[in-house]
Amino acid sequence: MPNPISYAQNNRERHLAELIEFLRIPSVSTQPEHQADVQRAAEWLVESLTAIGLENTHLIPTAGHPLVYADWLHAPGAPTVLIYGHYDVQPAEPFDLWHSPPFAPTIRDDYLYARGASDDKGQVYAHVKAVEALLKSDGRLPLNVKFIIEGEEEMGGPSLSAFIPQQKELLAADVALVSDTAMVSPAQPSIVYGLRGMCYVMLDIYGPQRDLHSGTFGGGVDNPLNVLGHVIARLKDENGRVLIPGFYDRVRPLTDEERHLLAQYPFDEANWLAETGAPQPWGEPEFSLVERLGARPTLDVHGIIGGYTGPGGKTVLPAHVHAKFSMRLVPDQEPAEIQSLLEKYLADILPPTVTYELHWRGGAPASISDLHHPAMAAARKACQETYGRDPIFMREGGSIPVVGEFQTYLGLETVLLGFGLVSDQIHAPNERFYLPNYFHGIEASIRFFQSYGERD
Amino acid sequence: MPNPISYAQNNRERHLAELIEFLRIPSVSTQPEHQADVQRAAEWLVESLTAIGLENTHLIPTAGHPLVYADWLHAPGAPTVLIYGHYDVQPAEPFDLWHSPPFAPTIRDDYLYARGASDDKGQVYAHVKAVEALLKSDGRLPLNVKFIIEGEEEMGGPSLSAFIPQQKELLAADVALVSDTAMVSPAQPSIVYGLRGMCYVMLDIYGPQRDLHSGTFGGGVDNPLNVLGHVIARLKDENGRVLIPGFYDRVRPLTDEERHLLAQYPFDEANWLAETGAPQPWGEPEFSLVERLGARPTLDVHGIIGGYTGPGGKTVLPAHVHAKFSMRLVPDQEPAEIQSLLEKYLADILPPTVTYELHWRGGAPASISDLHHPAMAAARKACQETYGRDPIFMREGGSIPVVGEFQTYLGLETVLLGFGLVSDQIHAPNERFYLPNYFHGIEASIRFFQSYGERD
Repeated sequence: MPNPISYAQNNRERHLAELIEFLRIPSVSTQPEHQADVQRAAEWLVESLTAIGLENTHLIPTAGHPLVYADWLHAPGAPTVLIYGHYDVQPAEPFDLWHSPPFAPTIRDDYLYARGASDDKGQVYAHVKAVEALLKSDGRLPLNVKFIIEGEEEMGGPSLSAFIPQQKELLAADVALVSDTAMVSPAQPSIVYGLRGMCYVMLDIYGPQRDLHSGTFGGGVDNPLNVLGHVIARLKDENGRVLIPGFYDRVRPLTDEERHLLAQYPFDEANWLAETGAPQPWGEPEFSLVERLGARPTLDVHGIIGGYTGPGGKTVLPAHVHAKFSMRLVPDQEPAEIQSLLEKYLADILPPTVTYELHWRGGAPASISDLHHPAMAAARKACQETYGRDPIFMREGGSIPVVGEFQTYLGLETVLLGFGLVSDQIHAPNERFYLPNYFHGIEASIRFFQSYGERD
Repeated sequence: MPNPISYAQNNRERHLAELIEFLRIPSVSTQPEHQADVQRAAEWLVESLTAIGLENTHLIPTAGHPLVYADWLHAPGAPTVLIYGHYDVQPAEPFDLWHSPPFAPTIRDDYLYARGASDDKGQVYAHVKAVEALLKSDGRLPLNVKFIIEGEEEMGGPSLSAFIPQQKELLAADVALVSDTAMVSPAQPSIVYGLRGMCYVMLDIYGPQRDLHSGTFGGGVDNPLNVLGHVIARLKDENGRVLIPGFYDRVRPLTDEERHLLAQYPFDEANWLAETGAPQPWGEPEFSLVERLGARPTLDVHGIIGGYTGPGGKTVLPAHVHAKFSMRLVPDQEPAEIQSLLEKYLADILPPTVTYELHWRGGAPASISDLHHPAMAAARKACQETYGRDPIFMREGGSIPVVGEFQTYLGLETVLLGFGLVSDQIHAPNERFYLPNYFHGIEASIRFFQSYGERD
């Protein structure tokens, strides 16, 4: 009887070639000019899932980018795993900082460089190849699987958020499996049990109807760029405390037990700081860096553009400014409530000398998973067998919108089995995926299915 | 004997055609791609000055854009007027807001639309055409004139600033005449007796070495865009008071007499507000709007760009941000001192979690002219004869760097005889020049030369 692990090892070259093909498609979900590419990535995935023997494989149209669904449900009595991932990617700008083009995947020193390599095409595709290895070797799976792969994760996942509450039966399962997180190191398997949520906001502030001469009008007309400075300063103080009234009201305090657990996390601060290139760490002084990064809410401005931004000087009092920012949330902050707190606060602090518009770009609740779920034990065993050591359990600062929604609407716990690395430069130029993690990921996924399927 | 005023009136069509030709040259001094255009504008001016009979007409090379010089010095015993203007213009961006292309001058409803129409090509060229009218009609001028026309006004005038102290003899005169300001209305001649100075600054703030994922790193790494917000908020409060320690130390208090004079200024607040399109006026509550606009120092942010500024969202913790801002100064603030106060303050308020670079883009002292200078009386008479009413005397919020330098190095008072209108949209899209002001400006200039030349 053929061995799925051997099968995976014997097919590494092809599995890599297929991932490279997937990565060539610039499926940037937030940029309208890439709409056709996003569609193409979804179709590519449908073909790939069908080819390995999955069933009911199809595109689910939405108001935005389509969902990709597939299943294999021929293991009566065995549990069902809902495998989630996303085929869309972040914008690749600024292009000039990439050492090789973002959509021409390039291997250098065991890393595969491409936008989406780690977030999330490489990680979700590892599960696809694990299922292939099992089906081609054993002719069957040890449990039931359902794939639901979305194309809007990088834009806050609105269509899947709307879909989940409507399609509880289609998505019904015993546990969700998600690989969209990072390992501590290539040798140290890691399971994330907590994720931050988020609220993403775009703010436009309008002052005069047109750019004015700052000499002729300066001092008598309020300046939207100066106003924005005051708004930003009043959103978060210089020590990292968010100043929106009520923002912390629902933050679940860290228990002593959890602070102890997080203190065990093998965090190499010097290495981490070198990775960021920042002059020094920063943040709420009463929390450790590991706590600040995973277990505390925060607020970051992502982009500002306003006034004259060309070379040299121009003495304008600008008509308007555009800013993007988001808040990362922790349990039990509610995105809708945070949104209304922010709306009220901005109405209070923005002066009548300007007007403004606020645009919401999606929100997602934070989540915490039950460490005692049987699938957690299976994931631990898969890690032990693949990497030769116990995984560590950690909280992660990023947001995976659906995890909280799986919990809320489907009653599912999620196993977050990460194959990425913190140094993968996701959302930044030169995103990469460590190739041994791709191949080990396929093996860990095979073993997870085997172990969880045989649990009874 | 031919009359210079009639000559001017008979040649209006040609005088307009020549101005249009001048305006077609996109002499944007701050944009390197327009360097050849700036040079071309200077050469065009030399030809034009030579053609009307001025002497010693030549380009003076500088480290930047050339100066244009010309003179006529054959009126012994009569005073000498140093006529200053600039042939460079502001950048024309954003192009899409122009109703006709900025360098394709277009006449609509008695307005000539073009970048530089009012600031300053149209105004300085009115003096050139006045000199032409006098020389062609009378064969001579009633006094001596020297033209010094620079190509760096919109970038802070560094070359002329360096030139003035070195060339006191070449530039020696009895008074300076500058038309680079606005009239209250087309019917109300206006003489500016006070100008604000300025310091222009570019600030780059650097955080992490590359854009980071705001989920993975947010809360543990300081964000240059958030830091910039705090910096802006700490530069000027929400009531318009600049917060740099020592900033107001040398501000000459407004005398009761001057507050009374400024209160006489026929300021139509509703009209002015409609002109700005701002929701309401703004600024230091203890000063009137006219005082805030002309007689109080201020600080405005002109442009910010940083992080992700494309469509849609991107959750980055950005590596750096660029901001441009300037301070408008009033007598007796010293640009160099303000610069060092700002440098010290920024060093104090910028946290060690970021690094920054500060670039100075020129500074200019504020100025106030003596209302009792004989040239002021000549200017008043020229206004009365041209417009049929007394000019009003006002302070203007803009900066004309050389006026303070003429005072300091050449001992010259300056007559600021404005032909522009506040509604000319200088430094903004759809800059325009009211054509009757061009033709009346030529006549007022002729009469000023006649009156000042005959003063003894």
